[in-house]
Amino acid sequence: MIADTIRTNTYRLGILRNRKAMEGKVVLDVGAGTGVLSIFCAQAGARKVYAVEASSIVEQAVRIVKLNSMEDRVEVIKGTLETVDLPEQVDVIVSEWMGYALLHESMLNSVIFARDKWLKPGGLILPDKAELFIAPINDLVVEDRLNFWSTVKSQYGVDMSSMTDFAKKCIMNRDITVNLVTVEDVLSHPSKFADLDLYTVTMENLRSVRGGFRCECFGSSSINAFCVWFAVTFAGEDKPLVLSTSPFSPETHWKQAVLYLDEAVDVMQDTKSTGTRRREEEDD
Amino acid sequence: MIADTIRTNTYRLGILRNRKAMEGKVVLDVGAGTGVLSIFCAQAGARKVYAVEASSIVEQAVRIVKLNSMEDRVEVIKGTLETVDLPEQVDVIVSEWMGYALLHESMLNSVIFARDKWLKPGGLILPDKAELFIAPINDLVVEDRLNFWSTVKSQYGVDMSSMTDFAKKCIMNRDITVNLVTVEDVLSHPSKFADLDLYTVTMENLRSVRGGFRCECFGSSSINAFCVWFAVTFAGEDKPLVLSTSPFSPETHWKQAVLYLDEAVDVMQDTKSTGTRRREEEDD
Repeated sequence: MIADTIRTNTYRLGILRNRKAMEGKVVLDVGAGTGVLSIFCAQAGARKVYAVEASSIVEQAVRIVKLNSMEDRVEVIKGTLETVDLPEQVDVIVSEWMGYALLHESMLNSVIFARDKWLKPGGLILPDKAELFIAPINDLVVEDRLNFWSTVKSQYGVDMSSMTDFAKKCIMNRDITVNLVTVEDVLSHPSKFADLDLYTVTMENLRSVRGGFRCECFGSSSINAFCVWFAVTFAGEDKPLVLSTSPFSPETHWKQAVLYLDEAVDVMQDTKSTGTRRREEEDD
Repeated sequence: MIADTIRTNTYRLGILRNRKAMEGKVVLDVGAGTGVLSIFCAQAGARKVYAVEASSIVEQAVRIVKLNSMEDRVEVIKGTLETVDLPEQVDVIVSEWMGYALLHESMLNSVIFARDKWLKPGGLILPDKAELFIAPINDLVVEDRLNFWSTVKSQYGVDMSSMTDFAKKCIMNRDITVNLVTVEDVLSHPSKFADLDLYTVTMENLRSVRGGFRCECFGSSSINAFCVWFAVTFAGEDKPLVLSTSPFSPETHWKQAVLYLDEAVDVMQDTKSTGTRRREEEDD
């Protein structure tokens, strides 16, 4: 994860640019992992950072904090955010909570819990805004994979075309498909379909993150999937800093999420694709 | 799997080249999957093929056999080889049983069971020979991944060098590491360390597949791992046909297995690396 330089650099800058807000303050790092964000906060002047991490990676965080002689300022706490007891309220919450497609197995619930229980009124959350985007794509990899079964007969003399449906079902039944989408496969400008303000979003809101979208296709092609990605924003003293996982931005470990259609749809220039996305729990 | 053309083509040729042995004969396909090998056998002239498959992919095999109008010759049977009851003894056993590094989660036990229970005396097994090879390598990917932690300080101002040991442990503790080894990373000619004759090998033999190896390095480098791969051979009326998963052969889905050393060892030209490999169950 640290090797995802886009992610780590953006977090680092997002924290360092908030020196004024960090100076002498108390920070809570939700899901601290190896503790690298906690150390960035201490470097930005935080008086105390509580690095809360539930998994066994916490042992590495303890070693790293020692190695950097930060024991006096960074306190590593093993436990879930929901159960730990901090000695004080905090001025800042920092967290790298985003899952694939933003919310897939994300830790946003823990950040909301932390905000409601431990953040002082007027405190800072980094990042403080999340946005979801969508665009129709022509996924050539999956198209090739499905077409493959129709080519087996000419290649091996065995008709395996009946596998196309089965392969399609396997792809559709996946919990989530995460691919690196090629810019050339994106068929329109992206459409933002949801916004989350981390100061106000509630766990109840997360049960149904939804929004309409409207995309106009660049030219003749075939839509066989929609691609979903996110961006999060760090407010700053100067201008805000955006960590984007768009296919138009440099690659991150989040790549993009791909939602396949049952059937591909041919499109021309300016063909509009519109829709509403809601979380599965809400589907009939 | 079918998309692994090296695998499928070699099996197809290995079967078709045995037309004389197949003609009018009865075949058992152990772990038939989609049934493609069974159909190759029918195409090679088999009178009857029993395609035994335990997983739910068997339903696809049934559809594919129908699609190819082979129902009279290919009988798909859902079940484990160890429990199915065939109406007759067979002349030929065909199976694609090989796992990573040949024996990792392989189905060779089922092939041996099938041979002992169902193969007529003098019957044919395809493939009938398996060989294991080893060579020292310099795995640059893992070296870079481990070195990475020493570079975090200069990049982000946080000393994370203590993660190197942890990352190394994570790599060593993996059940098996399967990578595509680059030819340039291989530091010597390969050494064959084990042979299996499918007509005679026993389940007891499989508990301890072992053999010595001796490799002489090409030149100055550093060995940080050994790479293991296999080849299987189809006897034929003309010359035998080899399906090799060597890093020097075209890529297959088996790639190669990589066994990392605790510490890298510097070598020069003609440095000898020797050893014995035994299955883990035997380790102290």
